[in-house]
Amino acid sequence: MKTRIGILGYGNLGRGIECAVRETGDMELVGVFTRRDPSSVTTKTGVPVYSAEELKNWCDRIDVLILCGGSATDLPVQTPEYAKYFNVVDSFDTHANIPSHFEKVNQSASATGHTALISAGWDPGLFSLIRVYANAVLPDGKDYTFWGKGVSQGHSDAVRRIRGVANAKQYTIPVEEALEAVRSGSNPELTTRQKHVREVFAVLEEGADAAAVEQEIKTMPNYFSDYDTTVHFISMEEFERNHSGMAHGGFVFRSGATGLSKENKHIMEFSLKLDSNPEFTASVITAYARAVKKLADRKEYGCKTVLDIPPALLCEQSPEELRSHLL
Amino acid sequence: MKTRIGILGYGNLGRGIECAVRETGDMELVGVFTRRDPSSVTTKTGVPVYSAEELKNWCDRIDVLILCGGSATDLPVQTPEYAKYFNVVDSFDTHANIPSHFEKVNQSASATGHTALISAGWDPGLFSLIRVYANAVLPDGKDYTFWGKGVSQGHSDAVRRIRGVANAKQYTIPVEEALEAVRSGSNPELTTRQKHVREVFAVLEEGADAAAVEQEIKTMPNYFSDYDTTVHFISMEEFERNHSGMAHGGFVFRSGATGLSKENKHIMEFSLKLDSNPEFTASVITAYARAVKKLADRKEYGCKTVLDIPPALLCEQSPEELRSHLL
Repeated sequence: MKTRIGILGYGNLGRGIECAVRETGDMELVGVFTRRDPSSVTTKTGVPVYSAEELKNWCDRIDVLILCGGSATDLPVQTPEYAKYFNVVDSFDTHANIPSHFEKVNQSASATGHTALISAGWDPGLFSLIRVYANAVLPDGKDYTFWGKGVSQGHSDAVRRIRGVANAKQYTIPVEEALEAVRSGSNPELTTRQKHVREVFAVLEEGADAAAVEQEIKTMPNYFSDYDTTVHFISMEEFERNHSGMAHGGFVFRSGATGLSKENKHIMEFSLKLDSNPEFTASVITAYARAVKKLADRKEYGCKTVLDIPPALLCEQSPEELRSHLL
Repeated sequence: MKTRIGILGYGNLGRGIECAVRETGDMELVGVFTRRDPSSVTTKTGVPVYSAEELKNWCDRIDVLILCGGSATDLPVQTPEYAKYFNVVDSFDTHANIPSHFEKVNQSASATGHTALISAGWDPGLFSLIRVYANAVLPDGKDYTFWGKGVSQGHSDAVRRIRGVANAKQYTIPVEEALEAVRSGSNPELTTRQKHVREVFAVLEEGADAAAVEQEIKTMPNYFSDYDTTVHFISMEEFERNHSGMAHGGFVFRSGATGLSKENKHIMEFSLKLDSNPEFTASVITAYARAVKKLADRKEYGCKTVLDIPPALLCEQSPEELRSHLL
């Protein structure tokens, strides 16, 4: 019997889950649940849409519920709440709040006999895995994480809030010289400014003062003042044509040394180049939903993260197949 | 109490384990066991050396025994045998024989209540992990593994067996254009010849026929005939000065697509650049020895591979610390 997946929230991430589940042979999507009027939502593949209010009637028809809300306001409430009724996976990505989110979800899931996995995706997620493996293998070393090239939602929002800006996208771009310095094994100390540059494409409102807007962007504390930022003002038409993509990516490095006098240097590098950030994130989440079902079947309840999951549980293939073909 | 580690076999790998255990705060090396005369072996850090014949008297003084013999003849016998008496880790790397090795070790370890982990290292090992994660996340995709630049022991041996060759090292080198083609997302079909080139540095014996030796190398079936091979004849002095290093490395890629009509492409890339192949391999094995001890404490007996181990078990840090700092 296939693992029955439910989706709560049908934005870019929810649509990505719909596609990813369709690629599997062992999972099926039973429904999309939305806080909007269900009749206003059409799914990509014709999966039925229900009101989120009905969700709690689906406890015995959903094996794993995937929570596709946002980390800022949705998931901190939804994950602890729905872990009382379902096995769940979320992509909670506010790094600083992971410990408290974990505790809340763990309490709900443990008390009710469910398995929950939080913070699936690529960072946190695959990048976390690489950091943990690399730290375990090279305890004497230095970590580097770079993001991009890709859109930062938070920085784009910050620019859009400036008076005179009609629309804007902000790209975070790793500095090539910094990547090369890390790859060389020189263990550089890199400042914020040396690691990433920021590039803004903004559409001005009629009559706005371009120089003033540019100045306001470049000097914005926390968001831009510590970075070298380039600002381009473009037409709405160009904006829509060239800046609607959702590409992203990044790099994780560990540079470490071994040997009695640390004479041997080693560099581990992992990188992602993604055409669609939400679809790739959804693909990671879907693999972890498979693992959550297996853990729940073994009655391994409570809250987990990617660090707790044996890699083999993510796969449709049997352990024997994996040992024969991928080990 | 620290995890007590024993080493069987004191070659390059054994010396690497000695250094790696020294880097940890939670493991200690209690002894090196050798089939040679123990008095002829001096360890790098003064760890005592004992005869391999005494090993079975150490059952209650060693928590994890690390088997540092070779995959060709030592490990197929040693790992199933010692898994009857100890929790063990090996680096068995003959990919084709992993399933049968697994079965034998699993039988010994399960029957006697021990935990065994086979095939730790980087390939099999870290590269296997990346292949499994990447296949789980992008089921519709293509894998590529490249090795090098680094010495292939088997190919070096093959050259040394040629009449007229006094000594030789063979480097396997990934072809830059092939790496770039994979990185571009074009999903190339690559022949053996297109993926790697081979470079041989050989010292001739007095009076040997260089042209004949070069011809014999380049046409050797299985080893060289399917590759573009460059042969350099050098002096023994240059050989010893420039070709005694043990650097290695490699690349694992998965290139896959998502979306309803597979319109979005994604590239995952993992690479290693290692000054010392044996010391890095030893560092991986040491991290897995830590996990083996934790599994044995939980009575999770039998044979495991890296695919069965939750990443958090490899770390000295607590799960809470990992969630706060590395997730």
